Amino acid sequence: MMDLDTITSISTPMGEGAIGIVRLSGVDAVNIADKLYKGKESLEAVASHTINYGHIVDPESNEVVEEVMVSVLRAPKTFTREDIVEINCHGGILTINRILELTMTHGARMAEPGEYTKRAFLNGRIDLSQAEAVMDFIRSKTDRASKVAMNQIEGRLSDMIKRQRQSILEILAQVEVNIDYPEYDDVEDATTEVLLTKSNEIKADINKLLDTGTQGKIMREGLSTVIVGKPNVGKSSMLNNLIQDNKAIVTEVPGTTRDTLEEYVNVRGVPLRLVDTAGIRETEDIVERIGVERSRKALGEADLILFVLNYNERLTEEDRKLYEVIKNEDAIVIVNKMDLEKQLDLEEVKSMIGDMPLIQTSMLKQEGIDQLEIQIRDLFFGGDVQNQDMTYVSNSRHISLLKQARNTIQDAIDAAESGIPMDMVQIDLTRTWEILGEIIGESASDALIDQLFSQFCLGK
Amino acid sequence: MMDLDTITSISTPMGEGAIGIVRLSGVDAVNIADKLYKGKESLEAVASHTINYGHIVDPESNEVVEEVMVSVLRAPKTFTREDIVEINCHGGILTINRILELTMTHGARMAEPGEYTKRAFLNGRIDLSQAEAVMDFIRSKTDRASKVAMNQIEGRLSDMIKRQRQSILEILAQVEVNIDYPEYDDVEDATTEVLLTKSNEIKADINKLLDTGTQGKIMREGLSTVIVGKPNVGKSSMLNNLIQDNKAIVTEVPGTTRDTLEEYVNVRGVPLRLVDTAGIRETEDIVERIGVERSRKALGEADLILFVLNYNERLTEEDRKLYEVIKNEDAIVIVNKMDLEKQLDLEEVKSMIGDMPLIQTSMLKQEGIDQLEIQIRDLFFGGDVQNQDMTYVSNSRHISLLKQARNTIQDAIDAAESGIPMDMVQIDLTRTWEILGEIIGESASDALIDQLFSQFCLGK
Repeated sequence: MMDLDTITSISTPMGEGAIGIVRLSGVDAVNIADKLYKGKESLEAVASHTINYGHIVDPESNEVVEEVMVSVLRAPKTFTREDIVEINCHGGILTINRILELTMTHGARMAEPGEYTKRAFLNGRIDLSQAEAVMDFIRSKTDRASKVAMNQIEGRLSDMIKRQRQSILEILAQVEVNIDYPEYDDVEDATTEVLLTKSNEIKADINKLLDTGTQGKIMREGLSTVIVGKPNVGKSSMLNNLIQDNKAIVTEVPGTTRDTLEEYVNVRGVPLRLVDTAGIRETEDIVERIGVERSRKALGEADLILFVLNYNERLTEEDRKLYEVIKNEDAIVIVNKMDLEKQLDLEEVKSMIGDMPLIQTSMLKQEGIDQLEIQIRDLFFGGDVQNQDMTYVSNSRHISLLKQARNTIQDAIDAAESGIPMDMVQIDLTRTWEILGEIIGESASDALIDQLFSQFCLGK
Repeated sequence: MMDLDTITSISTPMGEGAIGIVRLSGVDAVNIADKLYKGKESLEAVASHTINYGHIVDPESNEVVEEVMVSVLRAPKTFTREDIVEINCHGGILTINRILELTMTHGARMAEPGEYTKRAFLNGRIDLSQAEAVMDFIRSKTDRASKVAMNQIEGRLSDMIKRQRQSILEILAQVEVNIDYPEYDDVEDATTEVLLTKSNEIKADINKLLDTGTQGKIMREGLSTVIVGKPNVGKSSMLNNLIQDNKAIVTEVPGTTRDTLEEYVNVRGVPLRLVDTAGIRETEDIVERIGVERSRKALGEADLILFVLNYNERLTEEDRKLYEVIKNEDAIVIVNKMDLEKQLDLEEVKSMIGDMPLIQTSMLKQEGIDQLEIQIRDLFFGGDVQNQDMTYVSNSRHISLLKQARNTIQDAIDAAESGIPMDMVQIDLTRTWEILGEIIGESASDALIDQLFSQFCLGK
């Protein structure tokens, strides 16, 4: 374990709350907190993992700043594997800032975003993929995404990656023997045999993980969803029904005006990210607004398109134009207003859309919404996945590295099969081992590590 | 101590943060948490005031929900004087809600706003004025307001009120003797003597407390401040200078549109509540906007008016009209644009404004802002009050009750002086004793108590 300086931060969300916490981590954590703390005993004297009632007193003015409960957690059984002190106070913004400042004037340094988790990583308590999962966990928008992240925190992905790397080391050992004793033909054969068997196993494992990637990424980032249809087909009421029916989490997109909102709706475990719903609500027609070419591009970036038709109206040229724009995307066709008189020729619709799924609804009478939700779930998860194993790859960085690893292990397999010298094969294998190591942070650069943790929230 | 049911809530502010806490309080707190907790030992087995690493596991599905640190604090040394369990988790909104739900399905009830503090009160750990101070403390906008609230939490106001009530009891005992032995004239004289001396002492004490009321209330609620002046005198830049120079806390006023914001600016310990600054910024002229009569009313409700004149322009009819509107208010006249050529006749201004304070500034060159800030502080605190005793009455309810108590004790004094029978005087004294008791909650009704705590934030 390294001896790093002592860091401090407010670790509860900013805002008026019942509890606010200033957290210190590092060799001087207890000592610094002790300078500010008046209680029955000094914090240096108390046992580890205890909670101690007392007051924060400004040592210079002797003024009582706060009534607090101070948790003392001594290394190594802590989140960072360093000494941690948590000053638990009454949740006023002003005072919690004051306590933060006092810890800084008495020897602590303001923590950078993610620095606690970074220390947990640097001190070897968790690997990089586990650290990333901590943040995914905090930001998860559905229970399923939480489960995936919790699985990663618990180290299931790490274990798989470690097994694969171990396997590569075993192949490399065999290759080494082969390079040392090039004169024995049977050694060469045995090596090729081991190499091909094990490499193919690894490749299969990586493929299996990558197969979970799309679902994992959707669970993590949400399914970006756009509702299209000509004016007055019921897009807004569909949006409202989806939102009412489900818990919606509205997030402002940082760096944009207040109008660009993302609404997350948890539809049977699938997080729909309803992009720019304000726009949908107001303009009612994305194609009309931005033109066919540009909307084709915008719609192409969506993961899911809900294409709404009107049961009470014949199929129009506009409907056909919209269909042309979305025909190659993942889309669900919704025939709405089933409560009104039939005007739409459903056979004509079916011959237009081919095997695109079709749902009939009445948003007014709130009919068909269940079927729509089930269709959305089935489209992305192939049915109920409640009981499936939750070891998904969900992080783009991991997916990208796994794809690279799949390529390099394939190179090794191809090389071995075509009898290319073993020292060349060795390079591909070593590279695969390194790439997999990057996922868990064992061969990650400092710059990468800094960049990853800087995306964390403050105080974590 | 009463045996109340076990309550649960999220006690950290809602939002993405590093730490989220679900807090349980009540007889079953440990037992309920134990059903959800898997760690080295059961929570029933661990010592009080310890922090325990483990996992929250859904007992029905056996699914690992979270990695947690659980604090166990057994009665009576806790905030509520009941058993308290705090489940300290990674701060994801979804999971913290999940844990909250699990505590509810396993026997806890969702806490009402302020219910933890209410229990601290009901269980006799703090009195009502201390409980109210907890909320004032959380909401305080300046260091000074924090100090006042912390003083009240520590019980300084309570102690004063208790001493006064004790004093009244002593008078009442004397009065009782007098009523029991009405035949002794010297007892009557002695009683009147004691009654008048002590009652006048109490009245003086109450008056002293009430004197702190205005300052206390300002510190608690902020000094509602309006900036007026004809267009283009530099109101916006003054506002911006005040905000830049000081830490501003922007609060949305609940129940209003996003446009009605309050900005708190801490000016040398005085919290200025800059009301409707959006309005000031946009329309540049409150009088023009809402008319002279209505603005007179709006300005009359302000605690402080900053009246801005232009050094580079002669005094106009508009300036005079504005002055007429504000002349009876607490106002500071600011002659701005001192960096430009003199056009304003300062003698003319002085003869108009009389003894209203006048400050000369250049917002462009950032000159005179210090003087303005000092003037604001002096106007409300009569100089530097850093070292004054911080036992202020700041709460409107307390101020109102103290005023009533001052009236009833005055009635008692008047009655005694005019020789009204002692049993009549007794009524006034008893009433005073009761009114003072309401401040600390000893004679407060259940309805009042419910109403007070309902203004607290959730989880406190």
